[in-house]
Amino acid sequence: MNPEEEKRATPCSSPVFVHNPYLDVMKDDVLYHFGLGTATHNLPAMFGDVKFVCVGGSPWRMKSFTEYIAAEIRMEDPESEYPNICAGTDRYAMYKVGPVLSVSHGMGIPSIAIMLHELIKLLHHAHCEDVTIVRIGTSGGIGLEPGTVVVTKKSMDATFLPKFEQVILGKTVERNTDLDQCLAEELLQCSKELNQFETVIGNTMCTLDFYEGQARLDGAFCSYTEKDKQDYLKKASEAGICNIEMESSVFAAMCKLSGLRAAVVCVTLLDRLKGDQMNSSHEVLQSYQLRPQILVGNYIKKLLKAKAGRSCNSATV
Amino acid sequence: MNPEEEKRATPCSSPVFVHNPYLDVMKDDVLYHFGLGTATHNLPAMFGDVKFVCVGGSPWRMKSFTEYIAAEIRMEDPESEYPNICAGTDRYAMYKVGPVLSVSHGMGIPSIAIMLHELIKLLHHAHCEDVTIVRIGTSGGIGLEPGTVVVTKKSMDATFLPKFEQVILGKTVERNTDLDQCLAEELLQCSKELNQFETVIGNTMCTLDFYEGQARLDGAFCSYTEKDKQDYLKKASEAGICNIEMESSVFAAMCKLSGLRAAVVCVTLLDRLKGDQMNSSHEVLQSYQLRPQILVGNYIKKLLKAKAGRSCNSATV
Repeated sequence: MNPEEEKRATPCSSPVFVHNPYLDVMKDDVLYHFGLGTATHNLPAMFGDVKFVCVGGSPWRMKSFTEYIAAEIRMEDPESEYPNICAGTDRYAMYKVGPVLSVSHGMGIPSIAIMLHELIKLLHHAHCEDVTIVRIGTSGGIGLEPGTVVVTKKSMDATFLPKFEQVILGKTVERNTDLDQCLAEELLQCSKELNQFETVIGNTMCTLDFYEGQARLDGAFCSYTEKDKQDYLKKASEAGICNIEMESSVFAAMCKLSGLRAAVVCVTLLDRLKGDQMNSSHEVLQSYQLRPQILVGNYIKKLLKAKAGRSCNSATV
Repeated sequence: MNPEEEKRATPCSSPVFVHNPYLDVMKDDVLYHFGLGTATHNLPAMFGDVKFVCVGGSPWRMKSFTEYIAAEIRMEDPESEYPNICAGTDRYAMYKVGPVLSVSHGMGIPSIAIMLHELIKLLHHAHCEDVTIVRIGTSGGIGLEPGTVVVTKKSMDATFLPKFEQVILGKTVERNTDLDQCLAEELLQCSKELNQFETVIGNTMCTLDFYEGQARLDGAFCSYTEKDKQDYLKKASEAGICNIEMESSVFAAMCKLSGLRAAVVCVTLLDRLKGDQMNSSHEVLQSYQLRPQILVGNYIKKLLKAKAGRSCNSATV
């Protein structure tokens, strides 16, 4: 490889940005909801090698993802049980295997936002570079066969606009919810190669509520009709919305601000045009939930292989 | 007791209301995030005797509350480990001892709203009557000594208005966040009798975010100054706001709609006028977190004693 080629193959490394001048002057930083901190933990030693972060709502799912990815990238340790790094708290669960960090975020925008503030600070304190982050989750589909995986193009709000409204000191600030389109295309390509389940790229609606906020007819309160629901979902579909979940907008906004290469990969558990209740069998729902894991696991494996190949080539130049 | 007296002492029983005509025509109802359902569980047999529901963010705290209350109301079973009723899912944890149900709700409005939709339906399906519900939580105080317990008078939004904005089919609907003022006064009185820690009644600000939304200077992003923060918190204080948390507004709104007698009891972990980080020792923070449990536990004990006394009196009339 000549120097020019090598330069192209090795892009400039990109740090994880915080945008807060007060952090520089803090003696130490307590990441309260992780039970970690700069005074109590050597964050560069613990996390400095992180290149991929996968986040999802459920702590169990994030542990099972870690076990899966460990086997996939052949870094499993038969002796290890992959301890929860945030064992001192029950707000979030965190696992790590090699360069892959796996973190739970609970349900809804506020819950994932707290986690992301502390994760971004963690990656910053640990001097991580070139980090890719993927939310692997579940969602309700619109007009898709249940089990279809949606890679988010744009995250939209409940009025079908691609923005996230952050309230700061009582005032609303609009933030951009762009996700990395190359990463989305790479994930779609990876799914084609896998050929195990249907994957599409489409817009995702992110709501503040699961029942009334998503036009469900099965909540404790429902002041609209089946027709109102169908009309609303039809309009969503016309705006290119393929699925509905509750975290993608703030995830996209915060990752963009901090320079993280980000994607959202959610499986649809049901077709909302046909119903509201999750009444597929436990086994079927479980198998659907594995799909984003399988796709992202394979993508990470592919990237690590390519990287190992490059290192090998460089070494033999 | 003459019939008139008895009538006054025994108010009409009040059911738990749902407001959804579609529920009546559903063959069965899957409470997905609880891992429970009307077809798979005998909800009246499991929950029909519930009179008190305590909810809080952390699953561990709600388990420890159950153990505490079991000892307080002398219903502890030394053989029992108080199994998690929602063991089939890791979205929420639920425990029950006698008439007291204890449920975790995660962090933030969307997370507690999902739980409350399913809890209200559960109590409705179980034909529960005269249910009192209390959120026991943690918060940041404004100008209060850390460890002070705040019983919420009004839950206010980030612009200091006592309302909750629910988005329904993309349109914003304002909901009232009134809490039961008699219950708040009874809890304050109970704390005076206990005389173990300072308790006040005051307004509570409920935000969608823990960092920028609460004017913290220690998030990954911060675009305002220390002075902006102090000005904002001062204005909040002038609106009677004593503490800040992330669930009370939707809790108040949904409980009011469903006829639940509701209160919010949160301990302040720090004084936000003096800092943003939770850097008290683990032991101190733990002891603070016990205070809402102790207060609400004693209140429940007092009410159950009074009720037992009334039953006794009635029986001997």
